[in-house]
Amino acid sequence: MNQLSLHEHVTRLSDVLNVINLLNWDTSTGMPAAASRQRGQQIATLTILAQNLLLSEEFAYALAQERQLPDLTLHQRHSHRAIEEAINWHQKIPASLVAEQAQLTAVAELAWREARSRNDFALFQPHLTKIVALKRRIAEAVGYKNHPYEALMHEYEPGLTVPVLKLLFSQLQSRLVPLIKRIHAEPKPENTFLFRHFPAEQQRQLSSVLAQKIGYDFQRGRLDITTHPFEISMGREDVRITTRFNPQFINAGLFGTLHEAGHAIYEQSVDPVLSGSALTLDLIGFYGVAGTSYGVHESQSRLWENRVGRSLTFWNNHYTELQAIFPGVLDDISVEQFWRAVNRSEPTPIRVEADELTYDLHIMLRVELEMGLIDGSIQVSDLPALWSEKLQQYLGITPPDDARGVLQDIHWSKGMLGSFPTYTLGNVMSAQFMATALQQQPALQNALEIADYQPLKQWLTDNILQHGRTWLPNELLQRVTGSSLDATPYLDYLEQKFSALYSR
Amino acid sequence: MNQLSLHEHVTRLSDVLNVINLLNWDTSTGMPAAASRQRGQQIATLTILAQNLLLSEEFAYALAQERQLPDLTLHQRHSHRAIEEAINWHQKIPASLVAEQAQLTAVAELAWREARSRNDFALFQPHLTKIVALKRRIAEAVGYKNHPYEALMHEYEPGLTVPVLKLLFSQLQSRLVPLIKRIHAEPKPENTFLFRHFPAEQQRQLSSVLAQKIGYDFQRGRLDITTHPFEISMGREDVRITTRFNPQFINAGLFGTLHEAGHAIYEQSVDPVLSGSALTLDLIGFYGVAGTSYGVHESQSRLWENRVGRSLTFWNNHYTELQAIFPGVLDDISVEQFWRAVNRSEPTPIRVEADELTYDLHIMLRVELEMGLIDGSIQVSDLPALWSEKLQQYLGITPPDDARGVLQDIHWSKGMLGSFPTYTLGNVMSAQFMATALQQQPALQNALEIADYQPLKQWLTDNILQHGRTWLPNELLQRVTGSSLDATPYLDYLEQKFSALYSR
Repeated sequence: MNQLSLHEHVTRLSDVLNVINLLNWDTSTGMPAAASRQRGQQIATLTILAQNLLLSEEFAYALAQERQLPDLTLHQRHSHRAIEEAINWHQKIPASLVAEQAQLTAVAELAWREARSRNDFALFQPHLTKIVALKRRIAEAVGYKNHPYEALMHEYEPGLTVPVLKLLFSQLQSRLVPLIKRIHAEPKPENTFLFRHFPAEQQRQLSSVLAQKIGYDFQRGRLDITTHPFEISMGREDVRITTRFNPQFINAGLFGTLHEAGHAIYEQSVDPVLSGSALTLDLIGFYGVAGTSYGVHESQSRLWENRVGRSLTFWNNHYTELQAIFPGVLDDISVEQFWRAVNRSEPTPIRVEADELTYDLHIMLRVELEMGLIDGSIQVSDLPALWSEKLQQYLGITPPDDARGVLQDIHWSKGMLGSFPTYTLGNVMSAQFMATALQQQPALQNALEIADYQPLKQWLTDNILQHGRTWLPNELLQRVTGSSLDATPYLDYLEQKFSALYSR
Repeated sequence: MNQLSLHEHVTRLSDVLNVINLLNWDTSTGMPAAASRQRGQQIATLTILAQNLLLSEEFAYALAQERQLPDLTLHQRHSHRAIEEAINWHQKIPASLVAEQAQLTAVAELAWREARSRNDFALFQPHLTKIVALKRRIAEAVGYKNHPYEALMHEYEPGLTVPVLKLLFSQLQSRLVPLIKRIHAEPKPENTFLFRHFPAEQQRQLSSVLAQKIGYDFQRGRLDITTHPFEISMGREDVRITTRFNPQFINAGLFGTLHEAGHAIYEQSVDPVLSGSALTLDLIGFYGVAGTSYGVHESQSRLWENRVGRSLTFWNNHYTELQAIFPGVLDDISVEQFWRAVNRSEPTPIRVEADELTYDLHIMLRVELEMGLIDGSIQVSDLPALWSEKLQQYLGITPPDDARGVLQDIHWSKGMLGSFPTYTLGNVMSAQFMATALQQQPALQNALEIADYQPLKQWLTDNILQHGRTWLPNELLQRVTGSSLDATPYLDYLEQKFSALYSR
C-alpha cells in the first residue's frame, strides 16, 4: 500500500462508512427482500474493511506522523483525539465479541419481530438474555467510571455519566409528574378531526413543502416512504429522509417528516471543510454521521418537530396551506383547534405515540430497566412484570399486552442498550439551545412569526451544526449555552406551552 | 489481518464489487445530482480497496496454498486460472495509468456531453486523442498476439483475436449487404401506429408482465426508470433492470425491457454455489457480473429481445394483452401488422435505433475506426470524415451532423474502446445457441408457441447461465454448440425472418 497521509486514510474510512449508510438506506427502501442475507454479508464485509483500515499499522503511522507536526489546527487536534479514542476502544473489544454481537443481533431481531407479532415475550427472552450478557462483557472490556451502563451510553453520548443522568432524570421528574397530573385533570382538546381522510400523496406534498421551508435542501436529499422513518447521510451532499403517511391520521407523516428533516438539516449544514474527516464520523459506532452525538442530533430533530412544528406560530403561518391541500377536509376546524389537537397530551403505553409531556417518562422507564439489566440487579425474565409496574407508576396505565409493552421497541434486539437516554437529552438540549438563541437574538422570534426560518437555521448552523463532531457533546453545550445539561429551560417551556394549551 | 482462505478473500472482493454496482445503480436512479463528485470519490475508494485486496500478499498466499491442495475441483481450477490472469493483468498496468485513465475519462465524459449537445466534435477531439494515446500504452503494457486492439477487446471478450473478428465480419458482410439491398428495395411496412399515445404507466405494466413471463424474477429484482436503460447485479438475489418509456413510441420501452430482462435472467440463473466466487466476477474489468463475457451476456439479452420478443409467435400470444392494456389504441391494427412494424428495416444514422438487419453494420464501422485508432493508421482528427464515408458505404446514408454521427455513443469518452465487437458477437452467438437448442430439443418451439418460456430458459440455464464465468467465451461456445464463432445460423435466421416479413 502507498504511504497515505492521515487525511487520505480517514477519507477512505469515511467513504466506506458512508457507503454502508447507502446500503442501509437501500435495504429499507428498494432492495428486494430476497436479498437480505446477501446484503447483510456486504455490510459485514465493508465493516470489516473499515475496521481493518482504522486498526492498520499504516493508519497508526500516519497518525503518529501528523501528531508530530508543529502548529496543529483545532480540527487536527480534535481529529487526533477522536481517532485515538476510537483506536483504543476498538482494540479493547476482542474481535470475537464483535462477531458474536453481529450474529446474536441478526437472529435476535428476527426473534423479536416474531415475539412481538405473536405477543409472546418468551420467544425473545433467551435472545435478550444473551445480548445482555454480551453487553456486560463489552462494558467490562471497554471500562467505565461509575457504572457499567456508562460504557454502553458512550457509544451514543460520549462522556455522559450515570450520576449526571440520574440527576437530570430526578430534575425532570420533580416537575414533570405534578405538571402531567395537573394537565391530565383538565378536559382533553378534541382531536377526532386528525383522523379524517388525508390522502398520502397530498400529505407527501405538504410535508415536502414544509420540510423545504424549514431548511431541508432537496437538491442534496430526497424523501422516500418506509415503514420505520429515518434520516441517513451519504455525506453532506446526499442526506436522505424517509417517512410514512397514514391516510387516516395526519400527525405521523407530518411531524415525522419535520423530525427527520431536522436531523437532515444538521447533516447538510456541516462545514464542507470537515467532509471526509474524523469530525464527520462516529468512529466508535462506525457510522457515517456528522452530528456531535445522538443526543445533540435529537435536539435538532425535536427542535424543528416540536419547538417549531407544533407551535401556534407555525400553524398561524401554514394552516391555510394545509387546509388548501386537503380541500374541504378541515374547513370546520380553526387553527387554534388544530394546534391544540396536535399537542393533546394523554397517557399511552406506546413510546412513539407519546406526546411531548409524557414522552420522557417512557424513556426513564426504559433506562431504569437497562441499568438494572447491565448491573445485574434486574433479570431479563422480570422485565414484563417490571414494565407493567413502572408504567403504572409513571403514567397510571397498564400495557394491554407485551407486544404493546416490553416488546414494543426494536432497540434491545439490535443490541442498542444505552441509546434511550439520548431521546431525553435531545429534548432537554433543544430547549437549552432555543433559550440561548432567543436570548442572544430576540429577533429570531419575529422571524418565526413571519415564517422565516432562515435566521434560526443560521444561528444553529453558526453555533452547532457547522462544527460537526469537533466538540464533545458537553463541550458543545457549554460553549453554546454557557451551561452543562440542565432541564430547567425544557421544563419551563413545557409548563408554559401546556398551560397555554389547556387554558380556555 | 487474519489468515483467510482464498474463498474468504474472494468473497470480500465480490462484496466490494457488488457494492460498487449498487453505488452505480443509485447514481443513475435516485441520487441527488449535487452528490456526483462525492459519489465518484466513494466509487474510487472502493475500487482501490478492491485492487488492494486482489494484489495483497495475503491473497497471493491464500491462492498459493489452495493451489497445492490435491483433488481440486473444476470450479477451483478455473477460479485459480481467472484470479491468476487478473493478478498478472493488473500488475502489468502501472497504477499511474489506471489513475490517469480515471481522471481522463471523468473529464472526457463531460466534454463529450458538451460536444454532442453543441454538435461540435472539436470540443471532444483533444480528450479522445489523450484517451487513444493512453489506450495504446495500456495495450502495450498488457501485451497482445496479433494486434494491439486484442488487448483492449480482452477486457470485454477474453480470448477474442483480430483475425477471428475480421473473418466473422467478412462472413457477415458477404451475406448481409446483398440481403439488406434486397429487403430495402421492397416497400416498407406501415409503422406510424407505433407512434400513437401509449401512457408510460401502462407501458410499465405491460413490460413488467412480459419480463416476468419470459422468466425475470421480480422477487429478486426491480424495475426503475432511467435515461439510459441498463441491468445491474448486486449478487444473484438482487438483479435490477431499468428502462424508459416514451409515451409517443412503444418500441423503446417494450423491447428495451425485454432486452434488460434477458441480461437479468442470466445473472439470476447462475448456480448459487458460485456466489461470492471468482466465477461470478469480472476480475479484469473489476465488475461484479456473473455472465461469461460481454458478448455472451449480449447473446442472452438479444435472444429474449429479438429472437423471442420480436417473433410473430410471441405476438400471436401477447398481442391481445397489449391491445387490452391500451384500450382502443390499436384496435384497427392486426397482430401481423404490428409484428411487421416492430421489425421494419431501414437505414438510420443512429446505432441504438437500428433494426436487426442493419445493426451489425453500425458495429463494423465503429470497430474499423477503433482498430485504426489503436494501430495508429487513423488519427482522431480524421474521424468525422471517415464516419461519413463509411456510413455512406455501409448504409447509403450520411449522418445529418456529428452529434448524430461520430459523437452519438458514450463509449469512447468512458475509455471503452474494444467493447463494440461484443454487440455483434451477442447477435451471432444468440443464433448459434438458439439453433443448438432447437436441434437438441425441438419441443422448445412448441412451448414458445403456447407462451411457455420455461423450457427455453431451462435449456439456457443448464447449458449456459448456471455456469457463470466457469468457461471462457469460446470454451463455452464449443461445449454448447460444438462449434466456434460462426455467423451462419445468425445469417440464416435473418434471411428467413426478413424474407417472411417482406413477403406479402
